[in-house]
Amino acid sequence: MSEHSKTVGVLGGMGPDATVDFMAKVIALTPAEKDQDHVHMIVDQNPKVPNRQEAILADGEDPGPVMAEMAQRLEVAGADFLVVPCNSAFGFASVVAGAVSIPLVSIIDVTVAAAVEHGATAVGVLATDGCLKAGVFQDALEKVGVEAVLPSDYELGKLMTLVNRIKAGYQGESIARDMATLATALVDRGAQSVIAGCTEIPLVLDAAAVDVPLISSTDVLAQQTVALARGEIALPK
Amino acid sequence: MSEHSKTVGVLGGMGPDATVDFMAKVIALTPAEKDQDHVHMIVDQNPKVPNRQEAILADGEDPGPVMAEMAQRLEVAGADFLVVPCNSAFGFASVVAGAVSIPLVSIIDVTVAAAVEHGATAVGVLATDGCLKAGVFQDALEKVGVEAVLPSDYELGKLMTLVNRIKAGYQGESIARDMATLATALVDRGAQSVIAGCTEIPLVLDAAAVDVPLISSTDVLAQQTVALARGEIALPK
Repeated sequence: MSEHSKTVGVLGGMGPDATVDFMAKVIALTPAEKDQDHVHMIVDQNPKVPNRQEAILADGEDPGPVMAEMAQRLEVAGADFLVVPCNSAFGFASVVAGAVSIPLVSIIDVTVAAAVEHGATAVGVLATDGCLKAGVFQDALEKVGVEAVLPSDYELGKLMTLVNRIKAGYQGESIARDMATLATALVDRGAQSVIAGCTEIPLVLDAAAVDVPLISSTDVLAQQTVALARGEIALPK
Repeated sequence: MSEHSKTVGVLGGMGPDATVDFMAKVIALTPAEKDQDHVHMIVDQNPKVPNRQEAILADGEDPGPVMAEMAQRLEVAGADFLVVPCNSAFGFASVVAGAVSIPLVSIIDVTVAAAVEHGATAVGVLATDGCLKAGVFQDALEKVGVEAVLPSDYELGKLMTLVNRIKAGYQGESIARDMATLATALVDRGAQSVIAGCTEIPLVLDAAAVDVPLISSTDVLAQQTVALARGEIALPK
């Protein structure tokens, strides 16, 4: 472990399984032969964050204030930078970033960077309806001049049902198959890579099930987290 | 989620995989249909805790002070009770308990209670050499009048090699088979149930591989954590 190692603050629980999946990926991506080589993470696995979808779509309770308090507690506890393993939550990123003096790493920006890395000019986005309505992926793709290939309303209805089943603990083969069908539909409409832009999706969907590169936002955020924590790249401002 | 729900503070990173395994088990054991039904956990995944084995066996750096600081930070962050998903760490429990005003749940006591539940009069203990030297399982079994069946020095040498391989990320079939052989040796010497008393062991060893009940300390601690967090049982004093 580098002497420049940093402590990661994780705003978790959105959902709980996705947070555990993210932590497992950070561990797997860390070159380590013993406990002491690993990345220091302080994780607030907080199920009390109001539903991000309902806040964006249905005038539900704003999760911003709870997320801002979590961020402040993580900063006090010693975090050097923050991550949120939830794409929809990024609609509320400015409130979180404004509440602390440490950087918040954007899962959206690092995922889009990975999706266009090999020159894709059209990128499919599998994300929740709240996340798509907030437009975070579309904005980030537009900034780099890349077309966003999105699910139809019908496909989005299917996607939301699958994501909510995954959150309820159902992660079997039929859910994986249905999710792969949704990804393939984006490829058929021209996507040269597909973003798994909801942290529940990689819990069921394997890259092998899709014909183009499948970019898991969880994987990319975990890679970035390890590199930042080990001091291999500089923290964002 | 009950209105009596409690926030769990997790002293983690001992090792990191075992902490993630514990968190996944808490999620799996919680009756939940949506994110908001889950248990609130604040987790300090801290790889900087000095090696517990070396502290007990080889006069290495004392992990007690680091664990006490972690406990205090978790209390400040809002934890109502503390758990440590590491058996060897329980050699340092009194330092942790003395540093905070919230209860520390003993992984040792809940595991021993589960191991003798069906009337076993001799219980096998697969645990690290530091944990066995600290005598935490032997003391707890003696208190309830049950014989502890322990690995021989030769078996313990094998066990430690396996545990360190697991901590380094090797969790394949040959390691699982070797671990099952060690458990079976305790059964052959009279154990009527076997405690998987190191949180790395259940990462490779299935209950089906052992002829008597295999009690995973991780599973038992997760069950107890869910029941305490949901207010189904009262917190220990």
